[in-house]
Amino acid sequence: MTSIEMIVAARARLQGTVRRTPLLSSPFLDEVAGRRLFVKAECLQHSGSFKFRGGWSALSGLDQSVRNGGVIAFSSGNHAQGVALAARLHGVPSLIIMPSDAPRLKIDNTRAFGAEVVLYDRMNEDRDAIGARLAEERGLTLIRPFDEPLVIAGQGTVGLEIAEQADEEGVTDSEVLVPCGGGGLSSGIALALEASAPGFRVRTCEPENFDDTARSLVSGNYERNSVMTGSICDAILTPEPGKLTFPILQRLAGKGIAVTDEEALRAMALAFKRLRIVIEPGGAVALAAALFHSDVLESDTVIAVASGGNVDTEIFAAALSRFG
Amino acid sequence: MTSIEMIVAARARLQGTVRRTPLLSSPFLDEVAGRRLFVKAECLQHSGSFKFRGGWSALSGLDQSVRNGGVIAFSSGNHAQGVALAARLHGVPSLIIMPSDAPRLKIDNTRAFGAEVVLYDRMNEDRDAIGARLAEERGLTLIRPFDEPLVIAGQGTVGLEIAEQADEEGVTDSEVLVPCGGGGLSSGIALALEASAPGFRVRTCEPENFDDTARSLVSGNYERNSVMTGSICDAILTPEPGKLTFPILQRLAGKGIAVTDEEALRAMALAFKRLRIVIEPGGAVALAAALFHSDVLESDTVIAVASGGNVDTEIFAAALSRFG
Repeated sequence: MTSIEMIVAARARLQGTVRRTPLLSSPFLDEVAGRRLFVKAECLQHSGSFKFRGGWSALSGLDQSVRNGGVIAFSSGNHAQGVALAARLHGVPSLIIMPSDAPRLKIDNTRAFGAEVVLYDRMNEDRDAIGARLAEERGLTLIRPFDEPLVIAGQGTVGLEIAEQADEEGVTDSEVLVPCGGGGLSSGIALALEASAPGFRVRTCEPENFDDTARSLVSGNYERNSVMTGSICDAILTPEPGKLTFPILQRLAGKGIAVTDEEALRAMALAFKRLRIVIEPGGAVALAAALFHSDVLESDTVIAVASGGNVDTEIFAAALSRFG
Repeated sequence: MTSIEMIVAARARLQGTVRRTPLLSSPFLDEVAGRRLFVKAECLQHSGSFKFRGGWSALSGLDQSVRNGGVIAFSSGNHAQGVALAARLHGVPSLIIMPSDAPRLKIDNTRAFGAEVVLYDRMNEDRDAIGARLAEERGLTLIRPFDEPLVIAGQGTVGLEIAEQADEEGVTDSEVLVPCGGGGLSSGIALALEASAPGFRVRTCEPENFDDTARSLVSGNYERNSVMTGSICDAILTPEPGKLTFPILQRLAGKGIAVTDEEALRAMALAFKRLRIVIEPGGAVALAAALFHSDVLESDTVIAVASGGNVDTEIFAAALSRFG
């Protein structure tokens, strides 16, 4: 179970390796949102997303002998790159199992970080079986993408930075909107803010039709998504909330928010124009919620996490040509 | 004459207002450059370029009674936005004279920051005459884009940050590549580094055929560009080096580097993919020099300033489609 002490310890391990990403803002975006809006630009993190924090936290937290045996991870792309880069910087091998329809950039980057990439067919192959076999054959240690206390602790360091940076801006009360797949980032941030900025409250943001966390928060049960394809927000399409992450969100998060793919693309185009950062669709859902769902927000200030920026050129160019 | 004391004083006035922009890097870019490469992302600055520093430095350095009378500036766009935003934050009026063929985004943003914008025809109208008349009629104070000690001091704060951030990365010797129009940014950085990081040396970067500073550094005289149009690097097309800036560069800068428009566009596409930042053509010439002219560089580490990110959507999309 992840605690604030684990998050603080993760920050110490990440010190000097992780990038303290900036908290950006623009008067033009404030106007669209109808309130003060800050964007925590984790797309500027090493490997292009917050996932490097969790990957580094997990690898640096392993016993050296275990770590030296190498690690394995399943991921459509951002966890893949985060773990691959963390493994490379630790000088240990990594094997990443990725769906064959993952964005090309994410597959290429994972390989370029030195990982061995095994692709599987999401429709016809059993990822877990492939992973279990390879892990056993080679003695690799599995780094789970979100249901892993050290990973949640690493992602929680984003929350510690938000608390500090918001304080520098004079912000003491705010909703903190976080893109949510399995809930590692949102639960980690929620734990960090509970301890360091009690006037802040996390709200999870998901793509429409993939709002398993929002629905689960309402019903109190684990609600599953009925489909697994059909959104461009590849980074955050998970079947249901995590076993470790959901209880944390249930205790600490406000009501979830769902946005359309079109809203995510519009948010990407506005971030390009007003913040000069590149966000991928799944990483833009929190900014989209802040900009286009302001009716469901309550605080005078809102902070949106831009969680990743690994987007294929064609998708980004399409966002610009439709909404730029 | 700008001194290090003036730069330090400008930093104190900018404190709490200016953004300390991150020093970014990517192993993929290191590979292209053949050395360690850092990018100082001033495109993430308020108003989208370093020009906000100089604008704020100049306005905050005026006597209050003078400032309250309002300011006037000439600019194709980034100085315009920097001065307009600084004026708005000081609560004083600004009038900006811009060429009618300036990028649409820059004209729109300058107006949105509350400035009165007067457009002129670069081919047939005399900008200085228009400005002199309006300044006199309304009692406005001219904020020069580069030949103004307080402006150079403000831009020099970029150099102080580079020195600190490079030190955090363990870098003690580096060439610092800086996009150069009139030379306000490069001369300010050179002065700051002379005092705070003597192992660093500025090198100016310009578009091919607009390398008046590079040629002037070679000849020791003020060399003019023979043309004023024909490059997409709108932000840094100036006829000749500045009267205050050039002597500083002559004393402190290394040999200048010229890059093609195509190289600038390729650098923009790589910054999109590897750093997830948006750079405009003129702001990308230093990164282009670092990536594609590594044969003329001498240091093991190079720092490139990405000076601005105010680019029209069409140009950016074209860079991605050609080189993404």
